[in-house]
Amino acid sequence: MSLLEQTAAMITGQDQTWRNQARARLDQLAIPHWALGRLMDLGLDLVGQTRALPPPVSRKVIITMAGDHGVAVEGVSKFPQDVTPQMVANFVRGGAGINVLARQAGTDVVVVDMGVAADLSALTGRGEVVDKKVAMGTANMAQGPAMSREEAVRAVEAGIEVVNELAADYDIFGTGDMGIANTTPSSAIVAVLTGRAAAEVTGRGTGLDDRQVAAKIAVINRALEINRPNPADGLDVLSKVGGFEIGGIAGVIIGAAALHKPVVVDGFISTAGALIAQSLAPMTAEYIIAAHRSMENGHGVMQDHLKCQPLLDLNLRLGEGTGAALAMHLVEAAARIVSEVATFEEAAVAGADK
Amino acid sequence: MSLLEQTAAMITGQDQTWRNQARARLDQLAIPHWALGRLMDLGLDLVGQTRALPPPVSRKVIITMAGDHGVAVEGVSKFPQDVTPQMVANFVRGGAGINVLARQAGTDVVVVDMGVAADLSALTGRGEVVDKKVAMGTANMAQGPAMSREEAVRAVEAGIEVVNELAADYDIFGTGDMGIANTTPSSAIVAVLTGRAAAEVTGRGTGLDDRQVAAKIAVINRALEINRPNPADGLDVLSKVGGFEIGGIAGVIIGAAALHKPVVVDGFISTAGALIAQSLAPMTAEYIIAAHRSMENGHGVMQDHLKCQPLLDLNLRLGEGTGAALAMHLVEAAARIVSEVATFEEAAVAGADK
Repeated sequence: MSLLEQTAAMITGQDQTWRNQARARLDQLAIPHWALGRLMDLGLDLVGQTRALPPPVSRKVIITMAGDHGVAVEGVSKFPQDVTPQMVANFVRGGAGINVLARQAGTDVVVVDMGVAADLSALTGRGEVVDKKVAMGTANMAQGPAMSREEAVRAVEAGIEVVNELAADYDIFGTGDMGIANTTPSSAIVAVLTGRAAAEVTGRGTGLDDRQVAAKIAVINRALEINRPNPADGLDVLSKVGGFEIGGIAGVIIGAAALHKPVVVDGFISTAGALIAQSLAPMTAEYIIAAHRSMENGHGVMQDHLKCQPLLDLNLRLGEGTGAALAMHLVEAAARIVSEVATFEEAAVAGADK
Repeated sequence: MSLLEQTAAMITGQDQTWRNQARARLDQLAIPHWALGRLMDLGLDLVGQTRALPPPVSRKVIITMAGDHGVAVEGVSKFPQDVTPQMVANFVRGGAGINVLARQAGTDVVVVDMGVAADLSALTGRGEVVDKKVAMGTANMAQGPAMSREEAVRAVEAGIEVVNELAADYDIFGTGDMGIANTTPSSAIVAVLTGRAAAEVTGRGTGLDDRQVAAKIAVINRALEINRPNPADGLDVLSKVGGFEIGGIAGVIIGAAALHKPVVVDGFISTAGALIAQSLAPMTAEYIIAAHRSMENGHGVMQDHLKCQPLLDLNLRLGEGTGAALAMHLVEAAARIVSEVATFEEAAVAGADK
């Protein structure tokens, strides 16, 4: 069996006995019943995922996956492709949004070159960026498959490898992305896997105007017509209209779920990765925490499909893992509520009238 | 002039020059324009409020105001009135939701006895609770005014005093409440100050069923008919259908705004305090950060009236300041974004096509 097959086969759902134990404690907290709402739901999930009470979440890392996209030549982004390696260098220097927000959240950041169309050996050689480069960017999906099926497997397995290499040091993972033009493959993926029209799930990305969005939709429709990805086969979808960083994110999710560790999924591109992961290993959805609802059109469609309700809704559309970093505060809060808030008995507080 | 009049007269709006300076920096960050959305809006507010860049927000405190309510005898809460002093003791021991979430957010908690119907001298004597007790709980507003006008002034001024006493040690304040039955006066306040029917702005509080909610609405309508609070006079509204902790919260907001310090307003009861504050000093609204949208019916009506959009929406309905504690993470994130994220020039990243 391949690493992907082996890892997918390890994934089981949340543990119901542990969930029940968490629920028994939460029902006794000296507060009106379930008055901390969705943080208590999240507390149940964390205990069910990690099989521990308190659920361990203090050692946090966000894995930011970078890759380039041949489809960028179609003019689907406001930014030139050079920005991908420039932003990777910015991540290494600590000046990007993800660095700032991860520092605040006590969360490490690991940057992975999944397929940036530039030589990053200076950064990977010093160990500042993890080298999992599959190729120098994908091919243009508007003219043929973005990558081969072998490359798609390689991308997903690279994500699994990164998680396995970090697993001893971290309790919880977050996902992030960097890749000029990567909302375009992400919209294509959600269109294929949910059956929606491209126009329903394609947004402004880095700031396109109406005319540019219409052109982007046309590019996506051309890619779908030329490649005819099979919606029942996640690897086919990834290879036809995906990206290396999107495959890597799918691998991170599969790898985390196999280890019974929660994974905080960032925005639009990361959730495209989650759709690929779910297609390859449906139980991964039980380990996903949806960080936020992006401004990007189609993110809600993705989250409904995964049956994941986002924690935050702040009009974010940066990616990099920034929403995941912000959500880490709420994850930590949920873990503490389930273990640190006193019960009626511990606090000597009278309960509600029956 | 009274302390209240003096303090209200000090309040001016956010500083536009400082806001413009913050906007100039945020426009240059090496991200797609305004891609961190509402956190960038919040960054502008913080700079406009504090007149500083970076805006100081690291020294945080939540002021949790406790008081009892004569209207509790009408059976409007699931919990007995004894729970108010029991929860105050729980706050002092550090076992309540607010303690857990404030610790996580690096935020101190100051508990104030504004009018608990119990002798708290053991706690106030040791300095564990600040003694601003106006009376041993309010009178039953369903039979007459909750308090005298002098007591209403006293409650608001107590909040101002607490802020003034803490001002040298803290950059930012949060509000919180504890008081069995206090959603009932809060619903009455929002009904009076927004002109809505009580039925539109009255919810389940600590967990009432439909019949109990109907009875609670009838109690509020009786209080409004008997007392006829004047919607143009915040002190009249507070005295007729308010509470001591609600007046104290209004005072905290007025006091913070006068010092140009941001104040994170928690849930339904705290926002009732914000409505009173706005009625007494309209510019306070420019210093308010709405922490979250409570489960409690009517909270959205309040926030619309204040033109404040909440940061979080997590089905919380605990009070104590728990939502404010959670929102502190996002406030800190906003402050860091405006000062720590690199600009295109600093990061040597190419900008968008024009």
